[in-house]
Amino acid sequence: MSLLVVGSIAFDSVETPFGKAETALGGSALYFSYAASYFTHLRLVGVVGRDFPMVALDEFKRRGVDCSGVEVADGDTFRWSGKYEGDMSVAQTIETKLNVFGNFQPKIPAGFRDSRFVFLANGAPTTQMAVLKQMDKPDFVVADTMNLWMRIAKPDLLNLLKNVSGLILNDEEARELSGQRNLIRAGREILKLGPRIVVVKKGEHGAFLFSEFVQFALPAYPTDDVKDPTGAGDSFAGGFMGSLAAAGKVTLSTLKRAMAYGTICASVNVEDFSFAAMRRTNREQVDRRFEEFLQFIQI
Amino acid sequence: MSLLVVGSIAFDSVETPFGKAETALGGSALYFSYAASYFTHLRLVGVVGRDFPMVALDEFKRRGVDCSGVEVADGDTFRWSGKYEGDMSVAQTIETKLNVFGNFQPKIPAGFRDSRFVFLANGAPTTQMAVLKQMDKPDFVVADTMNLWMRIAKPDLLNLLKNVSGLILNDEEARELSGQRNLIRAGREILKLGPRIVVVKKGEHGAFLFSEFVQFALPAYPTDDVKDPTGAGDSFAGGFMGSLAAAGKVTLSTLKRAMAYGTICASVNVEDFSFAAMRRTNREQVDRRFEEFLQFIQI
Repeated sequence: MSLLVVGSIAFDSVETPFGKAETALGGSALYFSYAASYFTHLRLVGVVGRDFPMVALDEFKRRGVDCSGVEVADGDTFRWSGKYEGDMSVAQTIETKLNVFGNFQPKIPAGFRDSRFVFLANGAPTTQMAVLKQMDKPDFVVADTMNLWMRIAKPDLLNLLKNVSGLILNDEEARELSGQRNLIRAGREILKLGPRIVVVKKGEHGAFLFSEFVQFALPAYPTDDVKDPTGAGDSFAGGFMGSLAAAGKVTLSTLKRAMAYGTICASVNVEDFSFAAMRRTNREQVDRRFEEFLQFIQI
Repeated sequence: MSLLVVGSIAFDSVETPFGKAETALGGSALYFSYAASYFTHLRLVGVVGRDFPMVALDEFKRRGVDCSGVEVADGDTFRWSGKYEGDMSVAQTIETKLNVFGNFQPKIPAGFRDSRFVFLANGAPTTQMAVLKQMDKPDFVVADTMNLWMRIAKPDLLNLLKNVSGLILNDEEARELSGQRNLIRAGREILKLGPRIVVVKKGEHGAFLFSEFVQFALPAYPTDDVKDPTGAGDSFAGGFMGSLAAAGKVTLSTLKRAMAYGTICASVNVEDFSFAAMRRTNREQVDRRFEEFLQFIQI
């Protein structure tokens, strides 16, 4: 079924103990798109500046990503620089220049408004809500968010949560949003805020899925080769939403498989900088890793 | 098959955000025994002081724990006091009085020496090794250890590792022993030190199993009711070794089930102070929780 992602397109400069990348392609919408395109065609809405080489989108187009919703605005493309140290579980931001992303008012092309699956990558809750208002009634909308919005736009975030099917966030964000230290309680509290499902990502410790009737947990894929965690959360979301959209329905079974495919996409992505690891990994290899992962977790 | 545990018997005074227990029964060998006794009869070797009310062992005897290896020594029983704050992931020790446990030289009763499964709870590696030397050739010996021994008795620990089938330790200990931050690498490095299997416990994040050919991971049981984490690791070990001993063989299948039973026993134990939660939970309830857990993790 049709899948839409709205989020950032960025240039990232990243340093980790294993190397660095300067002004590499990144951003939530691109990481999401790369991962989701293993499973389905999708539609991308984002903004770039005049400095952006549009040819960089060709790779995405070849993977079945409709980039006709990428707007070119006056100014420079969003830039982020950061580094990871030690166990690389937390990024230290060196500089964030929102540039054109700071004034981004997503315009959903008419041909995208019938998308059945929608992913609202991290952004201001009012902006995420403005996207939803442009859509025909989608079947399954999942939003990402971050601590910043809990602090400066809590009422808007709470309003958004009443209008989405799912929320995806990391463990610290789940604790902050719910006020609960115990993640199981945190997940249940967030369900009360509106979404039918909540996915809590725990990095190297895997992920939880909460819904009214079912809880589900996965460890991370056992990789010993983490070079750059940038985009791990968005490639998880891409694998998750991409495989759900490909399945065309949201059931306990498709949700569980989606959690595992999200895990696999994140595990591939972190093995190199920018999109390098996903670029050298095809769908067959993703499926092989999925099968290995089942062996790793099944009793 | 016959199972032996050698470890500590203690009085614990514990404070957590959910209450406190004063001079409550504890110690690695007792937590292990309580959990293992869901699955099998077992043999206990430990030491208590003259202050110990031997009647406290009656409960264990009724559960099928042969306590004839519990030695009474001149002096007081091992006492530990500590507290847990915040997310309760780490115990803060207030006071440790080893008392009679400080000079413990375990003597394995003649009738225990043919035990096929042996668990060496945390203790000095030379003491653990001295236990092994008294045994007829056991089939499957698992040792627990801690950072202290890596720092003050590394050669003895390395020697022990060449003589055991398995090592069980927590994530920080695995990182310290291996010098690897990545836990997957850490597990593989520890395998090279001798044991055929390594179990890495990650508390609320579950546990890993490493062996030469197979890796396996489990999330923790999704409990929202953690009152006191004391003994979680030892009750995990008790469920793990107890279910293996009951199965009578160590295969990939029995190991995976043992990991899950260890997870379940730990999840029961942390729901109350001392043995209170295990005391009110019968085998049928353990099995029901095991089945729920399978639902929680199976795709």
